[in-house]
Amino acid sequence: MESRWIGVDLGGTAMKLGLVDREGRVIAEAEHPTLGEEGPDGVLGRMVRHARELAEEAGVPWKAVKGVGVGLPGFLDIPGGVVKHLTNLGWKDVPIRALLEEAWQVPVMIENDANAAALGEAWCGAGRGVDDLVCFTLGTGVGGGIVSSGQLIHGFKGFAGEVGHIRVQDGGVACNCGQTGCLETIASATGMVRLAEEAIREGKETVLAAKKGALSTRDLFEAKEQGDAVAREVIHQAVDALARAMAMLSVVLNPQRFVIGGGVSKAGESLLTPLREAYARHSQAHVREEVEIVGATLGNRAGLVGAAGLHARNAGG
Amino acid sequence: MESRWIGVDLGGTAMKLGLVDREGRVIAEAEHPTLGEEGPDGVLGRMVRHARELAEEAGVPWKAVKGVGVGLPGFLDIPGGVVKHLTNLGWKDVPIRALLEEAWQVPVMIENDANAAALGEAWCGAGRGVDDLVCFTLGTGVGGGIVSSGQLIHGFKGFAGEVGHIRVQDGGVACNCGQTGCLETIASATGMVRLAEEAIREGKETVLAAKKGALSTRDLFEAKEQGDAVAREVIHQAVDALARAMAMLSVVLNPQRFVIGGGVSKAGESLLTPLREAYARHSQAHVREEVEIVGATLGNRAGLVGAAGLHARNAGG
Repeated sequence: MESRWIGVDLGGTAMKLGLVDREGRVIAEAEHPTLGEEGPDGVLGRMVRHARELAEEAGVPWKAVKGVGVGLPGFLDIPGGVVKHLTNLGWKDVPIRALLEEAWQVPVMIENDANAAALGEAWCGAGRGVDDLVCFTLGTGVGGGIVSSGQLIHGFKGFAGEVGHIRVQDGGVACNCGQTGCLETIASATGMVRLAEEAIREGKETVLAAKKGALSTRDLFEAKEQGDAVAREVIHQAVDALARAMAMLSVVLNPQRFVIGGGVSKAGESLLTPLREAYARHSQAHVREEVEIVGATLGNRAGLVGAAGLHARNAGG
Repeated sequence: MESRWIGVDLGGTAMKLGLVDREGRVIAEAEHPTLGEEGPDGVLGRMVRHARELAEEAGVPWKAVKGVGVGLPGFLDIPGGVVKHLTNLGWKDVPIRALLEEAWQVPVMIENDANAAALGEAWCGAGRGVDDLVCFTLGTGVGGGIVSSGQLIHGFKGFAGEVGHIRVQDGGVACNCGQTGCLETIASATGMVRLAEEAIREGKETVLAAKKGALSTRDLFEAKEQGDAVAREVIHQAVDALARAMAMLSVVLNPQRFVIGGGVSKAGESLLTPLREAYARHSQAHVREEVEIVGATLGNRAGLVGAAGLHARNAGG
């Protein structure tokens, strides 16, 4: 009976579960609505049931499951296994590890969702075999996770890795975090669309004007391919801001690889090629030597794979 | 017979040696000229002799010395124990660990000098008891070291912790590293004196004009106390740049404590008080909570204490 692990990625709208083997392969997976209105007891009760169903349907006896990892978007006391504050579900001080261990009778670990995704990519995605890396998730916001000497960096209270709030612009626009000019205000999908809509409002000539109000970053990358000047400028700004943040992270952490994930990264080489050029411009010669900038490979499975990896990665084998 | 360790801080002009106990107390110390013109064999030969003399003069038999740590300013292959390039001594590819272990017959570890100093402060200086901290050394340049979860961050090739090269200014002056606007160009002693001399050249009224060509940061802090506007502005710029770098490090690493050392830090509260205010202005509320900004306490012994700590810190007891 081979050992298995379960990873859970608990978001505001959906919980994703995956049954994972020692190498991080996803053997079975499932997605269910979170139904946050049911409160911690309801949500965790269903999580417990869905995990057991997942194993059962895959023909894996529960005693083969050696641990469950749960990634959550919020403020966590990781050593204590307690959710301090889950903003989008309104949870406060939920001793999630104790509750789940009681129900499942297996070891449970929790992790910040962005860190779990970074760990997933580091373990068996685009960061495989690399001990020092930084992951960016370019989506509605800009999230991230840092792995150094093979270990996630958490910091004093678990807030490390908030790379979206690196300041890249003097006197930039206000960010949700209370500061100005954060990377997230420029290089997130939201930030890029905002920049494009500003240009449209200013009356600049662009094919994007036709999509006003319903713009996506995909529209931006397509318009750039067609030679649209506004799209080119917005993408240039986003790429330049990201490259500045990466140059800064290079002198601080000297990572071997940057992994770029999230919705915006679906642009692939249209994003990565100019990003590599901008990084070469902004970074010091000796810290950029042999540094790679690659796309994430696990997609939206990164979080659950990394959550399972909290256990499985150290299981030897 | 109590265990002892030796730390060596090898600089371009002097080698400092310290005999250290389990708690990081310096029992005996010595300083000798480096005499780099003698080459690796000559310098290391004398280092070997001076270390043995240090133990002997302190009445400690060599077999009580359980390890020696050496901090060096250069590019190191730390796992391999090899000096790749020591710029100011011109050394290349010196297998220093093997050479020293052969001579001393004790385990030897090497470390970047700024990291060794950070480790010294973390182990038994201003960072004692804190697992996540960042040290700045404000001197001719701005150096630093990062400790996360009690471990030094090295990165892919050992270049992590070069906090002096965080960019804090768009379109700033050129830095030795090839980039512009680095923290070091503003917040080092060199940078502060440069800013003051620029103001003097521009004809601004200042008591500092009398010291033109021989200005020190001590003069700046004294002039500020007397209400000198130029001194106030230069110190404000340096403090603001440092606080921006610290705010950025807080979202990336979420340290509990910043330790400020080096010559400039001798200004004490004249530096730390405005620095705390500027940090509060530039940082996110949740990452600055409970964060402390303190002066280094080990002075120029930090490097040798940290070098000894490479072994002794993990010796238990």
